[in-house]
Amino acid sequence: KVNGARLWDSLMDMAKIGPGVAGGNNRQTLTNIDSAGRHLFKDWCETAGCTMGLDTMGNMFATRAGTDPDALPVYVGSHLDTQPTGGKYDGVLGVLSGLEIIRTMNDLDIKTKHPIVVTNWTNEEGTRYAPAMLSSGVFAGLHTQDWAYARVDADGKTFGDELKRIGWQGDEAVGARKMHAFFELHIEQGPILEAEGKDIGVVTHGQGLSWTQITIIGKDAHTGSTPMPMRKNAGLAMARILDKVDQIALSHAPHAVGAAGHIDVFPNSRNVIPGKVVFTVDFRSPDLSVITDMEARLRTEGQAIADAMGMEIEFEKVGGFDPVTFDEGCVGAVRDAAERLGYSHMNLISGAGHDACWINRVAPTAMVMCPCVGGLSHNEAEEISSEWATAGTDVLMHAVLETAEI
Amino acid sequence: KVNGARLWDSLMDMAKIGPGVAGGNNRQTLTNIDSAGRHLFKDWCETAGCTMGLDTMGNMFATRAGTDPDALPVYVGSHLDTQPTGGKYDGVLGVLSGLEIIRTMNDLDIKTKHPIVVTNWTNEEGTRYAPAMLSSGVFAGLHTQDWAYARVDADGKTFGDELKRIGWQGDEAVGARKMHAFFELHIEQGPILEAEGKDIGVVTHGQGLSWTQITIIGKDAHTGSTPMPMRKNAGLAMARILDKVDQIALSHAPHAVGAAGHIDVFPNSRNVIPGKVVFTVDFRSPDLSVITDMEARLRTEGQAIADAMGMEIEFEKVGGFDPVTFDEGCVGAVRDAAERLGYSHMNLISGAGHDACWINRVAPTAMVMCPCVGGLSHNEAEEISSEWATAGTDVLMHAVLETAEI
Ligand SMILES: NC(=O)NCCC(=O)O
Ligand SMILES: NC(=O)NCCC(=O)O
Repeated sequence: KVNGARLWDSLMDMAKIGPGVAGGNNRQTLTNIDSAGRHLFKDWCETAGCTMGLDTMGNMFATRAGTDPDALPVYVGSHLDTQPTGGKYDGVLGVLSGLEIIRTMNDLDIKTKHPIVVTNWTNEEGTRYAPAMLSSGVFAGLHTQDWAYARVDADGKTFGDELKRIGWQGDEAVGARKMHAFFELHIEQGPILEAEGKDIGVVTHGQGLSWTQITIIGKDAHTGSTPMPMRKNAGLAMARILDKVDQIALSHAPHAVGAAGHIDVFPNSRNVIPGKVVFTVDFRSPDLSVITDMEARLRTEGQAIADAMGMEIEFEKVGGFDPVTFDEGCVGAVRDAAERLGYSHMNLISGAGHDACWINRVAPTAMVMCPCVGGLSHNEAEEISSEWATAGTDVLMHAVLETAEI
Repeated sequence: KVNGARLWDSLMDMAKIGPGVAGGNNRQTLTNIDSAGRHLFKDWCETAGCTMGLDTMGNMFATRAGTDPDALPVYVGSHLDTQPTGGKYDGVLGVLSGLEIIRTMNDLDIKTKHPIVVTNWTNEEGTRYAPAMLSSGVFAGLHTQDWAYARVDADGKTFGDELKRIGWQGDEAVGARKMHAFFELHIEQGPILEAEGKDIGVVTHGQGLSWTQITIIGKDAHTGSTPMPMRKNAGLAMARILDKVDQIALSHAPHAVGAAGHIDVFPNSRNVIPGKVVFTVDFRSPDLSVITDMEARLRTEGQAIADAMGMEIEFEKVGGFDPVTFDEGCVGAVRDAAERLGYSHMNLISGAGHDACWINRVAPTAMVMCPCVGGLSHNEAEEISSEWATAGTDVLMHAVLETAEI
């Protein structure tokens, strides 16, 4: 079993880099704070005897050598970047649990046939640069690197420039590595495990996602002196579409969710009717046909609302992935590990997107989940217990050891 | 008659200070750009032989002496600050037409019994610091100076600190001046004069206004993994309230308008259900009982929406003024001047708030309006013709000369 206290200390140390305003973290991708977190992780890995690789997307790969020079490595890991008002565990647990299993193997002098590699994938969160899971997506061949480099943040800074600026652009060609298997431990970010009283979620599938960015063009005008019939209030058109988003998702309940987290109103002045709004609708479902239906209805009903109000509307897909079925063998290894260790477990469908969803396309992949308090995530108050983190890491280690062959 | 070409040149010169991105201006109050505009105005006034006064709110007073040392001055003027994406005439025409009538009186060697004072009132627009017409409001005793100094902008900077920083805090006690009368020329910012083919609006009344800032507290959570029934989506609650705002205003049509120009969503990340929204509802009507009714319904129906969705909601009144009836004598002077000069004219109710609405409480006041293209204002594309500006300034001058006694 792993050293749960050491794992917890590492989680708390990483949380000191980029603290938020309410107990969580603001360590957004490709900021100076992100760089500081990467340095700490690199130091820890090197102290544990690993060599650090870095690819052209800034993905980090800490390798513990295996005994067979020809054997492909078993990969574990997740991401160290956070939401602007994020928690201390989302992604971080998946990276630092990887480090912890290497430390434990060192303590117990365990050797494996296959090397073990712990990864930190760049820009998983997708807040600063859409889409989410950008760099694991490039790794898996979903996006080109040129396209990824050209993504811009809200200040107009590109991903490529910012990666160079913080000094974490490596030389290794992205996606060149071949994997024997990939395992990612992550907090559930939903309420099911806690409600069911289970220690471990064996993730068999992942929901698919569709992000549509909508731009509505109305007409800036005075809120006082412009008669109601002459108005083109882009904010009001958005409001009506937001209500439709909710209705569309609920029409597929409980197999779909939908909301808009990102909303920008222009010029955003109390006495100017909004002449432009830009917002992003997030639809998800484990069923691809449901996602396709929701996306199509959003476009049809959004267009109808804009037309009825005499406004222009544009739809742009800024992120998306299909529902995922994880590898039977790797999923079995996770379930067996939980069983063997005596942890209660259940099958889960991941509600969120994860780097594992992309890596699943290029290597046999599975995920381990542990509960989080109240199912709360993407919130600074995100919380887990040290016991939950330890149990998840124990299961991760046993699944990895089985796959990497002692 | 005034020199219309010179007036137009001055308008175009002022527009070079703080150009916008689409042909208009961004010369927001208490910025370095605002300071540059003030310097240009001061230089022009001094060249025209005026002495410049400055009060503790940064209000500017350019005085052309009268012949009777005991006669109270006749005031004219408006504001030089603009919206973030504002036009070149909103406010500016009212200040520079004041300068133009002084230049014309110099050219024609006209002396008046009463001094003439041209004012630039600080922070009329209310975008950076709510409420609008802040400094004329302090002048007229509506707000205390301490309260005004404590207003904060979106970056947390106070009005008092910013006024000092840009170097335009004077020594003169605000409101100490007594006025014989006040006249403000302004573009209509609405479509009526143009539609009716009239040169001049004789403003008899002004609409009242109510600004309610609403804060809704939901719960930040993951857009993918949080089940629909567990969500507290503050953005969705806002959307429903925005639709109600429209319904409430339309229920009083055509005697009321309503919209929200300012909307901030937190944390504003594509995959985080908004945990908080802050937005401001702007209701207006010429009828005080209609404003009171709309305000009350907003609170009742907004509270009901928040309650039904399990969220907290707070309402704060951040601006308001009652409908205004301008001074009969001053309004008559404007109408007589238009008639005498042969300009077509009609009575108008101002849809927007103006410094004149506050000054009306402490001095006999009236307003002159000229048309603007398509009724468009609070938009960089705001446009007027030189002929409209000249006609408005001619009428302003004749009303002022009659009141100031040649
Ligand atoms: N796990 C996680 O929060 N990933 C971000 C991408 C998503 O929104 O699902
Ligand atoms: N005239 C003008 O736009 N004033 C700003 C205050 C208001 O919104 O009415």
